[in-house]
Amino acid sequence: MVEQQPIRRPGGRSARVRAAVHHAVTDLIAERGHGNFTVGDVATRAGVADTSVYRRWGTLEALLTDVAITWLTTTSPIPDTGSLEGDLRAYAAGVARDVTGPDGLAVLRLVIALSTGGEAGVRARDAFLAERGRQLQGMLDRARDRGEHPPEGLDILDHLLAPMYVRVLFGTGPLTPDYVNALADRLLVRPRPGPD
Amino acid sequence: MVEQQPIRRPGGRSARVRAAVHHAVTDLIAERGHGNFTVGDVATRAGVADTSVYRRWGTLEALLTDVAITWLTTTSPIPDTGSLEGDLRAYAAGVARDVTGPDGLAVLRLVIALSTGGEAGVRARDAFLAERGRQLQGMLDRARDRGEHPPEGLDILDHLLAPMYVRVLFGTGPLTPDYVNALADRLLVRPRPGPD
Repeated sequence: MVEQQPIRRPGGRSARVRAAVHHAVTDLIAERGHGNFTVGDVATRAGVADTSVYRRWGTLEALLTDVAITWLTTTSPIPDTGSLEGDLRAYAAGVARDVTGPDGLAVLRLVIALSTGGEAGVRARDAFLAERGRQLQGMLDRARDRGEHPPEGLDILDHLLAPMYVRVLFGTGPLTPDYVNALADRLLVRPRPGPD
Repeated sequence: MVEQQPIRRPGGRSARVRAAVHHAVTDLIAERGHGNFTVGDVATRAGVADTSVYRRWGTLEALLTDVAITWLTTTSPIPDTGSLEGDLRAYAAGVARDVTGPDGLAVLRLVIALSTGGEAGVRARDAFLAERGRQLQGMLDRARDRGEHPPEGLDILDHLLAPMYVRVLFGTGPLTPDYVNALADRLLVRPRPGPD
């Protein structure tokens, strides 16, 4: 008995390998946690050759960040609401939602772990941060084009992302909507020195 | 041949045990990293019985945070310069120095690791944060007593500590004196909404 072959489209095999490998990584992270599996484990689980993984991604670290950025881009696209206030609030709410869920927390821990993972880890981390930073900069550029006064990208890292990350990592208090909105609104205010 | 006994002072043995155990923990962290040794390892290294460690500290997590808070309190006392600006700048500079050094980074990673370390970990982490928070609150209370307008303790966590922690954990950029001073000065400004 001959099994029917699926219809082949151009690029179909490549896309299937990518999907199978991503799926294998997600499963292995859920089962074993970061740092507890190899490229060989991923390839076996995905039903592909080790060489297919190495050829396409180069290192385990690069594969892990590809999975992470794909997840983030898909589940948390950068908002485009038409106003800076709307964008910042929607973005902050998305970050709060992500980082308090298991997948988002895993991404945060991955980025931190890569920093101590040698040269391949640091390169993968930088690629991840550059890609997400590029997406975010698009949101700020749109605000500037509308004549608004957006904060710098690094201000968003320092005063919107970092407080939420540390509260989650330290377990110090929930990310309530009021708290999250206040972080966003703080970036809309241009501080002026002076006694009060 | 009879060796000469050291002179015993009241409380002397207890203090010696504490010092030996703290020293053993510091050595084991340097050699093996967090999470890779037990109370038994600490006791052996310190030349004391396991039961002495358990009786005094209860859990490995409580011992680790006792070592961390002792280190932090000794090497980085909370400043008392006579002005809020001076205190905040000195405090920020101390945090930047600590967190970019190996011991300070180890303390930061310990606090994060405790959050995933079960009930004993969370309890130890909360004790650590409460003690350091209490020290910091003293600095803010002194400013209020002088008639100054200090920020809330949580604002210091969110907008002074968190940005530095995340920059170190993510490896995104050095903590230059200008950057660190700007974080401190930002907390002196009371933001006012309004178009600009």
